[in-house]
Amino acid sequence: MSEGPEHRSGIVSLLTDFGVRDTYVGQVKAVILGIASSARLVDLTHDVPPQDVVEGAFHLAAAWQAFPPGTVHLAVVDPGVGTARRPVALEWRGHLFVVPDNGLISFVLGDRSPDRLVVLDRPRYHRPNVSSTFHGRDLFGPVAAYLASRLPLQEVGAAADPTSLARLDFPSLRRDPDAVRAPVVSIDHFGNCRTLIRREDIPWPLEHVWVRCGQAIVRGIVDTYGSVPETRTLALFGSYGGLEVAVRLGNAARAWDIRRGSVVAVSPGT
Amino acid sequence: MSEGPEHRSGIVSLLTDFGVRDTYVGQVKAVILGIASSARLVDLTHDVPPQDVVEGAFHLAAAWQAFPPGTVHLAVVDPGVGTARRPVALEWRGHLFVVPDNGLISFVLGDRSPDRLVVLDRPRYHRPNVSSTFHGRDLFGPVAAYLASRLPLQEVGAAADPTSLARLDFPSLRRDPDAVRAPVVSIDHFGNCRTLIRREDIPWPLEHVWVRCGQAIVRGIVDTYGSVPETRTLALFGSYGGLEVAVRLGNAARAWDIRRGSVVAVSPGT
Amino acid sequence: MSEGPEHRSGIVSLLTDFGVRDTYVGQVKAVILGIASSARLVDLTHDVPPQDVVEGAFHLAAAWQAFPPGTVHLAVVDPGVGTARRPVALEWRGHLFVVPDNGLISFVLGDRSPDRLVVLDRPRYHRPNVSSTFHGRDLFGPVAAYLASRLPLQEVGAAADPTSLARLDFPSLRRDPDAVRAPVVSIDHFGNCRTLIRREDIPWPLEHVWVRCGQAIVRGIVDTYGSVPETRTLALFGSYGGLEVAVRLGNAARAWDIRRGSVVAVSPGT
Repeated sequence: MSEGPEHRSGIVSLLTDFGVRDTYVGQVKAVILGIASSARLVDLTHDVPPQDVVEGAFHLAAAWQAFPPGTVHLAVVDPGVGTARRPVALEWRGHLFVVPDNGLISFVLGDRSPDRLVVLDRPRYHRPNVSSTFHGRDLFGPVAAYLASRLPLQEVGAAADPTSLARLDFPSLRRDPDAVRAPVVSIDHFGNCRTLIRREDIPWPLEHVWVRCGQAIVRGIVDTYGSVPETRTLALFGSYGGLEVAVRLGNAARAWDIRRGSVVAVSPGT
Repeated sequence: MSEGPEHRSGIVSLLTDFGVRDTYVGQVKAVILGIASSARLVDLTHDVPPQDVVEGAFHLAAAWQAFPPGTVHLAVVDPGVGTARRPVALEWRGHLFVVPDNGLISFVLGDRSPDRLVVLDRPRYHRPNVSSTFHGRDLFGPVAAYLASRLPLQEVGAAADPTSLARLDFPSLRRDPDAVRAPVVSIDHFGNCRTLIRREDIPWPLEHVWVRCGQAIVRGIVDTYGSVPETRTLALFGSYGGLEVAVRLGNAARAWDIRRGSVVAVSPGT
Repeated sequence: MSEGPEHRSGIVSLLTDFGVRDTYVGQVKAVILGIASSARLVDLTHDVPPQDVVEGAFHLAAAWQAFPPGTVHLAVVDPGVGTARRPVALEWRGHLFVVPDNGLISFVLGDRSPDRLVVLDRPRYHRPNVSSTFHGRDLFGPVAAYLASRLPLQEVGAAADPTSLARLDFPSLRRDPDAVRAPVVSIDHFGNCRTLIRREDIPWPLEHVWVRCGQAIVRGIVDTYGSVPETRTLALFGSYGGLEVAVRLGNAARAWDIRRGSVVAVSPGT
């Protein structure tokens, strides 16, 4: 980046499965502001279903690019808290991510590796007496705060091999001559079936492609829901940037028995 | 205002129907902070029922006056996103509002027109590649950020006739010699029936007026719920400033079959 | 504190039962920022069940210590709004609390009294025209803002006897030679039964103690849920710092008919 490798925006984004009924998120923010008193905190969501790493990975991938470079993304969906999974921080395209090494970063990276990776093994950047159940507050939060305060990435932990990151056991985008294929990673509460296929992944004219998912077949990718009659199935790029299959004023997942992991295939029209 | 016409508080309030399960609100904030890094962001609510412009208009009217002058209110409940409805910004009593021109501002203005109105037609104040489905992030958010950064209103768009704003097709306050009348605009989850009749709209002694709504008739406007026995119907000014009809420890909407649009009439006592 | 008696962190934490569907919380924040434009606002939770002072007291006690000294904690769960209950502010261990005097502060203090207490009787630090139903916005919020702006505590109200604070009629921690006893104060949505017994309250080796609650008897306090087989009952210190009784992948409250107020007893092993 023109801003240099340790540029910071001062923003910390937060994504967790903590919910907002309890004070967990507030406690994480308290610790961050205790270290980085001028950090700007932005909630992405705290309503990831408990321990659902795939859903968390989807939301992180959908949102991170809206932030300016130098933002620290703190994402904690961590079924392995208290076990041997590594706490890590990594740099990717000028953004920093502080996460448990459990695949949560998978959809941000796709099949690439981060530019730099460190393992968070330095207690002086954690809270004293790290609890065994709340690393968001005691370990990840403080590290995010130090990074937002311009501490260099290599200071918060020992460098590790960027290719050593855990990946979700989830098929990624596949480009073949006859089709681009990727799984549905998230189904929202309207039944829209969302993938991480982006506009630039499709080399063919959008209005003529065929989009298939399960028994659903759609001709062309449209711009808005309003482009098709009610109850008609359609494919469009959702506001998060990825291709989704939807039914106008209906529920595509239910109508076509689509689930997370169902494959969406885009092939050229004739 | 003594602060001058382009005074800014640095605060941006946010009201949407995006919900908080997805990262949409976080993305809007990311874009705002990317432009106005020191803006203060305050959520009003993101739980407006999807595309319910009337409910959004109610919440905006209930809340805006709590903010200092020079605040930018970003309100996006936008069933017409991607269609020809105009994106606008307007000034009213020292506050700025950035909204789709679909009536969302109706209850803030009552039957008056804003002091100034512009149409948001200048792409240099939008994100590159405005999506067709997420103008909150790509168009309204950036404009709100520029305004919060002290850009003059007339800079973000072409001036338009202030009387040209779309209004909700919803009866507004009517003052007759025998009564002040206004519709119920919102029913909360306790069944309280809320109007936009304010204290200053009623020229008679409050303790003697008659308040009627459907079959309900109440004598006098009281100060607190505790002023009447349990299960009794009452009228009081809610904390948002407007007159509401309620049943103490009960549900007024259900008890009296009151709906949004039902007329509340306040008439002088004898 | 080394920072001096009127040190401020600039942070205001917020805990209410207002919910987030309406704009009440946003209005409180608007008023705070109108007075203290650089205050940092952190939500603890706004989902305390309406008027449930005990649950609010639990959440406040669980969270306040994560904040730096000099933080102002604004907590409003206030069934007595509009009645004679006193609005107060108090200092405790370098933190400030702005609350209705209804017991909400009970679990923060335990059986001690605050270092200083004032009654909020000075209208010049309130909003003009305080409503009878929304003291969070009109009275507590402004006072919190003035305190966050470094106004001395004694300036916002008349000094009062620190021992005069109302307490919840809820048994507190009892230390006997044979056992430490305290009631369950909150049951979360997983059925975990949470007390305010802290690690330092137990003078015996944790791995040998007996923990009893209703019919449940557990040997030893473990570090993580994963320490016991599925469906087994366990006792551990929750991330909020207090002892809780849980069933791994189950619901302890339901399994053992534990309710708020049920007593947990910890006694030494043999």
